[in-house]
Amino acid sequence: VNERDFITSLKGFAHHPAARGLADDAAVLEVGGTCLVLTHDMIVEGIHFLPDDPPADVAWKLVAANLSDLAAKGAAPLGALLGYSLSDDEWDRDFAGGLGEALGAFGMALLGGDTVAMPNGAPRTFGLTAIGRASGPVPSRAGAKAGDHLWVTGTIGDAGAGLRSLLGEIEGAEGLVERYRNPRPRIEAGQLLAPLVTAMMDVSDGLLLDALRMAQASGLAVEIELGSIPLSEGHVISLGEDCAARLAAATAGDDYELLFAAPPGLATELLALGEQLGLPFSRIGSFDAGSAIRLVEDGKDMPLPDALGYEHIRAEGP
Amino acid sequence: VNERDFITSLKGFAHHPAARGLADDAAVLEVGGTCLVLTHDMIVEGIHFLPDDPPADVAWKLVAANLSDLAAKGAAPLGALLGYSLSDDEWDRDFAGGLGEALGAFGMALLGGDTVAMPNGAPRTFGLTAIGRASGPVPSRAGAKAGDHLWVTGTIGDAGAGLRSLLGEIEGAEGLVERYRNPRPRIEAGQLLAPLVTAMMDVSDGLLLDALRMAQASGLAVEIELGSIPLSEGHVISLGEDCAARLAAATAGDDYELLFAAPPGLATELLALGEQLGLPFSRIGSFDAGSAIRLVEDGKDMPLPDALGYEHIRAEGP
Repeated sequence: VNERDFITSLKGFAHHPAARGLADDAAVLEVGGTCLVLTHDMIVEGIHFLPDDPPADVAWKLVAANLSDLAAKGAAPLGALLGYSLSDDEWDRDFAGGLGEALGAFGMALLGGDTVAMPNGAPRTFGLTAIGRASGPVPSRAGAKAGDHLWVTGTIGDAGAGLRSLLGEIEGAEGLVERYRNPRPRIEAGQLLAPLVTAMMDVSDGLLLDALRMAQASGLAVEIELGSIPLSEGHVISLGEDCAARLAAATAGDDYELLFAAPPGLATELLALGEQLGLPFSRIGSFDAGSAIRLVEDGKDMPLPDALGYEHIRAEGP
Repeated sequence: VNERDFITSLKGFAHHPAARGLADDAAVLEVGGTCLVLTHDMIVEGIHFLPDDPPADVAWKLVAANLSDLAAKGAAPLGALLGYSLSDDEWDRDFAGGLGEALGAFGMALLGGDTVAMPNGAPRTFGLTAIGRASGPVPSRAGAKAGDHLWVTGTIGDAGAGLRSLLGEIEGAEGLVERYRNPRPRIEAGQLLAPLVTAMMDVSDGLLLDALRMAQASGLAVEIELGSIPLSEGHVISLGEDCAARLAAATAGDDYELLFAAPPGLATELLALGEQLGLPFSRIGSFDAGSAIRLVEDGKDMPLPDALGYEHIRAEGP
């Protein structure tokens, strides 16, 4: 069964407004005048990380992936609950060290959680619930308006290229593996963008797939200019910047950048904000009436790739 | 590495008062004058449930185990975030059905979460974060006073006997498997007890182990009268009520009853409250200066069993 069908089957139990119909990156819970943002992500060995990834990096990524969801809602990190499957002494110690570093770097406390034993040979599996506090409006995925521009922070595809270099598929330039292992959630940018944007989410499963999700949630079509997808120098050195390289970047996932919609009139302000943060904001497309995703290059329609990103599908039972 | 060592290594990151030093069943977060209680539990196929347990019951148990932690803090359930590993269509559908039933039964909404694919053959692994609201004092594990009585709700050992009957080890009487598969968190009792008790927690890993944890957290010794451990009729029919049967009940775990400490002067009030709820409260021991657990029968010291309950230990790496 795939992820979408399962989530659809759960929507009937998500009757609380905080759930946002299970259609957003996070839950938004009003408590005594304070706005809490809550998200939960799981990561599984062999799926979200490699068996020989350093344990400290796995901990970092678990924290970063969750904080990226908080960032996309403009929330400041507050605390986390950890679900942890025990390994051997050394692995557990290294994971705990990386967890402490990540929590410290993002100014959040560990509030609680659970540790479990797994059967021998089972993949390590971790969950983290992150809790943040929003002090202003909390953008959803669903607020984009026809005519809005689509923007993205930073550069896209670096983590995907880093993974391919770890797998020996390409010779990756410096910095790409770092972006795969130690992503930086865009917390500050998220808080500054939240009052300006009409919709925001993070790019975790692939730029094209996530852009389509934003368009669908907003009841619109989205057009993306392939040539405007921002690539890092390392990505260009490793994979080039032709159409194939840009498609690889736009479908790889694990970017943890912010994807947002904003009225055209805000373009100057947004570019200045990105400059102020030292994090480039790139305008990569626009929204219009309709319901699909279109890719264009130099004004010409391009065929869509077979997969727009990463979707969780399990074909067989265990 | 075992659970205790790992948790100890995390305590340095749990600097927020909401974390209660990672020494309690749940985090207690004050937000704008409202007291939120947050807990996260994981369950793993082959460890916490059997591969042929009905998926709807697995969902129920996941919800119930988390709500039992909320109950122990006197909190009313509010919402949950689910971490879900996808299976085949039928399993996922049945799980979703059971989840909806459990959430509905306890009046809580699904607020969000994550679904992941697992590698083929990996054990199904689920996490749930439950969020509750406390309207009065939130008892910790650590507040028992010397001279307090130790009490427990309901009957002990039924779920353990139910599991043994599913495994074909014993012929289990009616109702025991139901208590293993569909535990009832003591939410109402927890809310009524919270203002009365000096310490409270739920019995999940075994009565003796959990009683020792309460005593250690409170800096006290605890004495338990073996003969006063409450057994159900089904348990007595299946396993008898001799010393061995009582020890089995007191170390089996999965009870999801409430264990609490209260001054002797409250005994009459507590017995009346149990009667009012239709849930017997049994006085099973008392706290005193010291640091150990003692088992007595008819005034005589009994030897402690090798294992006081279930602790998560993973001997080998995967």
